[in-house]
Amino acid sequence: MRAVIMHGPGDVRVEDVPAPELVEPTDAIIRVDAACICGSDLWPYRGISPLKRPSRMGHEYIGVVEQVGSEVRDIQVGDFVVGSFMASDNTCEICEAGYQSRCIHVVGMGSIGTQTEYARIPWADGTLVKVTGDITPERRRSLLAASDVLGTGWFAAVAAEAAPGKTVAVVGDGAVGLLGILAASQLGAERIIAMSRHADRQALARRFGATDIVEERGDAGVAAIKEMTGGYGAHSTIEAVGTQEAMEQAIRSTRAGGHVGFVGVSHGVSLDGQELFLSGIHLHGGPAPVRRFLPDLIDRIMNDQIDPGAVFDQTLSVDDAAEGYRAMDERCAIKVMLEF
Amino acid sequence: MRAVIMHGPGDVRVEDVPAPELVEPTDAIIRVDAACICGSDLWPYRGISPLKRPSRMGHEYIGVVEQVGSEVRDIQVGDFVVGSFMASDNTCEICEAGYQSRCIHVVGMGSIGTQTEYARIPWADGTLVKVTGDITPERRRSLLAASDVLGTGWFAAVAAEAAPGKTVAVVGDGAVGLLGILAASQLGAERIIAMSRHADRQALARRFGATDIVEERGDAGVAAIKEMTGGYGAHSTIEAVGTQEAMEQAIRSTRAGGHVGFVGVSHGVSLDGQELFLSGIHLHGGPAPVRRFLPDLIDRIMNDQIDPGAVFDQTLSVDDAAEGYRAMDERCAIKVMLEF
Repeated sequence: MRAVIMHGPGDVRVEDVPAPELVEPTDAIIRVDAACICGSDLWPYRGISPLKRPSRMGHEYIGVVEQVGSEVRDIQVGDFVVGSFMASDNTCEICEAGYQSRCIHVVGMGSIGTQTEYARIPWADGTLVKVTGDITPERRRSLLAASDVLGTGWFAAVAAEAAPGKTVAVVGDGAVGLLGILAASQLGAERIIAMSRHADRQALARRFGATDIVEERGDAGVAAIKEMTGGYGAHSTIEAVGTQEAMEQAIRSTRAGGHVGFVGVSHGVSLDGQELFLSGIHLHGGPAPVRRFLPDLIDRIMNDQIDPGAVFDQTLSVDDAAEGYRAMDERCAIKVMLEF
Repeated sequence: MRAVIMHGPGDVRVEDVPAPELVEPTDAIIRVDAACICGSDLWPYRGISPLKRPSRMGHEYIGVVEQVGSEVRDIQVGDFVVGSFMASDNTCEICEAGYQSRCIHVVGMGSIGTQTEYARIPWADGTLVKVTGDITPERRRSLLAASDVLGTGWFAAVAAEAAPGKTVAVVGDGAVGLLGILAASQLGAERIIAMSRHADRQALARRFGATDIVEERGDAGVAAIKEMTGGYGAHSTIEAVGTQEAMEQAIRSTRAGGHVGFVGVSHGVSLDGQELFLSGIHLHGGPAPVRRFLPDLIDRIMNDQIDPGAVFDQTLSVDDAAEGYRAMDERCAIKVMLEF
């Protein structure tokens, strides 16, 4: 079967690899209907997170169940499913508390790779959610977004405690930041400030519910947010980049007692303890427990209440994956969908 | 009037200084009934936070109002009052959200000094809370504790979301850590693990509600907490030290989705972004908004529901302040009360 393999920075190939088999009795095998390229896939593509060996890529997916292990109870062959980018048992204390991405049995789907025709899904009952109803092309791409970027943006907005009456600032205009805007809007935030300097992303931000745009970054960006909020700073800030500058911008844009939800995969970030102490903010984030939100997100998608799939501005055959990586790296595409 | 002045590391003197006067119409002048020495006063005493010039010391206080400015409405001459170690207007958006220690008009009482016979209190209406009822010796020392260490321990427990059904770990066995235990107990925590290797502090920890003691520190301390919590870690952790080791111990002792309340004044702490990202914890802390909790804490003290004043294991005349600093520095005393 075909699978996307990264051999090194900038070197993405589609190769023929053996199809996966059931390993654990709690596994399922799915035929991947669509996968996508994630902002986090760009870290190794850019050589910032070097790969030790050629690696299968991808962790986002929708698909149809082909096989299930002997202990799988809830998921059946033929089900159309969405799953989180982190496989989880969904029964341990950590999962029960809603932190499935830190499940004691967690398996990152990135270690398996989903930019491939078939994929093994560990903890199928805990990881996958069955979708019923008419899967239109719009809903299909939105379901794919739910697998990571929507769930991650949603978690960021929840972690930032976006809610009615609140001003939410969003640092990062990639798919996650944009869907954080959508989430904050759905959660009833009064004012949503997108920090972006790209016209196409600004337009999508507004479509998703942003009420204001700030083009400045760093200290100037912080100053702009403060000025728009009576000198206090935002109540809630979403950080969806993962760099030192973005984290500092997020923390400094937030008022004392406010909340920063950070979901950008942290790269080389070091937080000054004294600054954090004096900031008086709440800080929460990490790999999003997408599984917590999936049933609700699927409902909203299947009711056409939200259209997160609008972040996909390029759709390619998996055979053209290398072109997709290039487009995302050069920021010509916000998010690339790969079809099989 | 007499005031405690620190001239440099280990050099504390009681000197005669001019009495304070009203500066702003929102000020009050109080006659200090009692003050105390704080763990944070030890940072300059030990030369870790060098002083630029001889400085008045102290930020905790109870006292009787002697004078009020023309715009003070609620506080009257003759009132017995407790105030936070951070003066606040208690009317700005930050104060209204319960973060009076980050009030836009905040004045740290440490910059004024309360180890002195009389002290100017900025924003008297916003800062001070009147106490009525019979102030017994036990209640008096507890009210003094409310000014900082009780309020700070309480904030730490609230920030750590101590609550029924939860296991709370407490890093730091100074007065704040011990009163964090008392707070966690009052908030209904199921299990409270004090991390301490001093018999006298362990005894007080148990009196305040600790159910378990862990003597190990660092990695061994983390391993002990994990072992006691089914491998998951504590739900809630209070950090009441402020060092790199204590912060790492707190973060690593906490389960994903759990809460760390950190109130140790941060010294040389640098948090690794990736570790924080992967931990999945909530992090909240800083200078405690004691004013938020004061009315409730005063009620609990005046109803003899809590006895936080038990942290004072030495009471000295202000003339013997130098002896008090020495005793706290050498950890011969948990907390020293200074009387006038």
